[in-house]
Amino acid sequence: MKDFFRVVKKSKKSKARIGILKTSHGEIETPCFVPVATQAVVKTLTSEEAEAAKCQILIANTFHLHLKPGEKIVKSNGGIHKFMNWNRPLMTDSGGFQVFSLGFGRDLGVGKIMKSGAGALVKVGQQPQNIKIIDDGVWFRSPVDGRKLFIGPKESMKIQEAIGADIIFAFDECTPPLADYEYTKKSLIKTHEWAIASLKNKGKKQALFGIVQGGKFKDLRIESAKFIANLPFDGFGIGGEFGDNKNTMIKMIDWVVKELPENKPRHLLGIGHPEDILKIIKSGIDTFDCVMPTHYARHGIAFASSGRLDMSKPIFLKDKKPLDKKCDCMVCRNYTRSYIGHLLKAKEITALRLLTFHNLYFFNSLVEKIRNDIKKEKV
Amino acid sequence: MKDFFRVVKKSKKSKARIGILKTSHGEIETPCFVPVATQAVVKTLTSEEAEAAKCQILIANTFHLHLKPGEKIVKSNGGIHKFMNWNRPLMTDSGGFQVFSLGFGRDLGVGKIMKSGAGALVKVGQQPQNIKIIDDGVWFRSPVDGRKLFIGPKESMKIQEAIGADIIFAFDECTPPLADYEYTKKSLIKTHEWAIASLKNKGKKQALFGIVQGGKFKDLRIESAKFIANLPFDGFGIGGEFGDNKNTMIKMIDWVVKELPENKPRHLLGIGHPEDILKIIKSGIDTFDCVMPTHYARHGIAFASSGRLDMSKPIFLKDKKPLDKKCDCMVCRNYTRSYIGHLLKAKEITALRLLTFHNLYFFNSLVEKIRNDIKKEKV
Repeated sequence: MKDFFRVVKKSKKSKARIGILKTSHGEIETPCFVPVATQAVVKTLTSEEAEAAKCQILIANTFHLHLKPGEKIVKSNGGIHKFMNWNRPLMTDSGGFQVFSLGFGRDLGVGKIMKSGAGALVKVGQQPQNIKIIDDGVWFRSPVDGRKLFIGPKESMKIQEAIGADIIFAFDECTPPLADYEYTKKSLIKTHEWAIASLKNKGKKQALFGIVQGGKFKDLRIESAKFIANLPFDGFGIGGEFGDNKNTMIKMIDWVVKELPENKPRHLLGIGHPEDILKIIKSGIDTFDCVMPTHYARHGIAFASSGRLDMSKPIFLKDKKPLDKKCDCMVCRNYTRSYIGHLLKAKEITALRLLTFHNLYFFNSLVEKIRNDIKKEKV
Repeated sequence: MKDFFRVVKKSKKSKARIGILKTSHGEIETPCFVPVATQAVVKTLTSEEAEAAKCQILIANTFHLHLKPGEKIVKSNGGIHKFMNWNRPLMTDSGGFQVFSLGFGRDLGVGKIMKSGAGALVKVGQQPQNIKIIDDGVWFRSPVDGRKLFIGPKESMKIQEAIGADIIFAFDECTPPLADYEYTKKSLIKTHEWAIASLKNKGKKQALFGIVQGGKFKDLRIESAKFIANLPFDGFGIGGEFGDNKNTMIKMIDWVVKELPENKPRHLLGIGHPEDILKIIKSGIDTFDCVMPTHYARHGIAFASSGRLDMSKPIFLKDKKPLDKKCDCMVCRNYTRSYIGHLLKAKEITALRLLTFHNLYFFNSLVEKIRNDIKKEKV
């Protein structure tokens, strides 16, 4: 993919860099936060609002769109950009994470976010119970209608081509946080084979990112980074488990980033708490997606420069300040905490929208500020 | 209220007229549909969007705002206009309807919309069980926290003054559809006393509309219209029961409108199905509020020039047309039935917003067209 990415400035103080990522739907400036549009919509918003909230790029979900409405319908609408009226860059993940969530996630009762630190490392040596992993991919049952479905690298590439995002991801096995060394090592072989198969089967118009796995194990992470970095991917995703605490996460990113080429973009999958964002960027990450601003909004939480606000607390009903005094977003210019607190208490959908808009604007502004700081050589 | 309303054109073909209703938050051109913003929000929308959907005026709910967040909080935010960032004209109803819904509505298991035609006329001769009507108003229990509350004309005027709408309504007893002649006649005496009490206690800056009741009984409707018309109200609301079918409704409006002065606005409370709108306007109604466009939107129904569309039907998933080919609203310009069908099936909140916006635009455009037809002497 020619001229897909170029680094326009490198920090002298850290591994942070400013980049331009160019797609047929426009450019994005990195480092860049990638909000989540799982079902071809940023939950509660319109695409026009996502743009107004300073979103440069979104990530939709191959697995969910395959089940609902099906990639055929997305394609017949002219692809996902036209379908959702989003004329800017867009990514899809490969569906791997969701497929494996149905397996180990269900067996162990864990999500990606659960930490293994609470107890001993659970031994995950055998196959998960609700999915069947074979050489070419994974059999599983549709959580929508119970149909037996199969997705492997070939299928994932076909689905992602039909959906039509600018950037797509290789199909990988996302190992659970509780996976042991043996399982992770074995799984990595499959992930690497599937990386090659993804490259072979990808659509010509799309940029394909390989995914580095390897769990929390240094030698496996480095091995995976080296292997994936040597394949002709347009960029790289770093997926899976990032350890028990923030320091471990940064350490693990460091292991991987060291092995990745300078001239290609690096995406951190599913991570981006506000308190981590600066560290992630200083570790050399260019893009990262996270449900946090949108998910928390729907649970009544606003992000503000003073910290998180639980807007369902009665105290905010009498607070006539905007969500964040330092914010110039549409919500902070027009509505008070009092009004948003009232809407939340009155169970009005509009509350969730106002919080979602503000939170996205907050995250995007935070990263924008970091970009400016890199340009000014402050970061 | 000086210069509050003037009729600028009268139809030669019907009782329809073009009017200008002037408030300190701007003018509206009548006939005008009044969308419902019960809890100081047009459900699922922002106030900016309500304006973009061509809403000229909204009606909020005194009863709901009294319970949540309480009129003190609305007032401390600078009144409802500032609270909800709606800088155009706004009405509040008196709370009467909701209070009586807690009484007879609960006793009889009926809402306002239920027709009595299905069975015999049920005799409603005694007091309702869950509320207590006394001379000065009504005792009832808060449906939020069970507190004992009292609202009469004096209290309603105080609450409405604190909320701060441009147009407020007198406190009345809204008789249930099943009320018999005796009950309705007795109730009317109270409604008329409360009309006088409402006038005595109203805020100086607000326009007050009296409410004509009288159920389905011609002599009572005429008696009520004459009584209310003779009081110094700024306008008139027509409330309560409108009979079993559309023809009865128009007949009943005719009884009342004949008794009302030409130079004051007439508001029809809670009525406005698309198929009725032209008839209502031709009967001399200037404004009317109805939950239909917003309520139906949240149940997946779109109004289109071809009729109602149940967007949850699978057939729409493959339909790449806009909701309404003849509509130029933001939704119809940017999104397909296929996309909206997908969002509904995927339980995405954005679906409800898109349908709400379109439906309001559709209703407002319909009334706009009728205004133009009156100007062109077609109606």
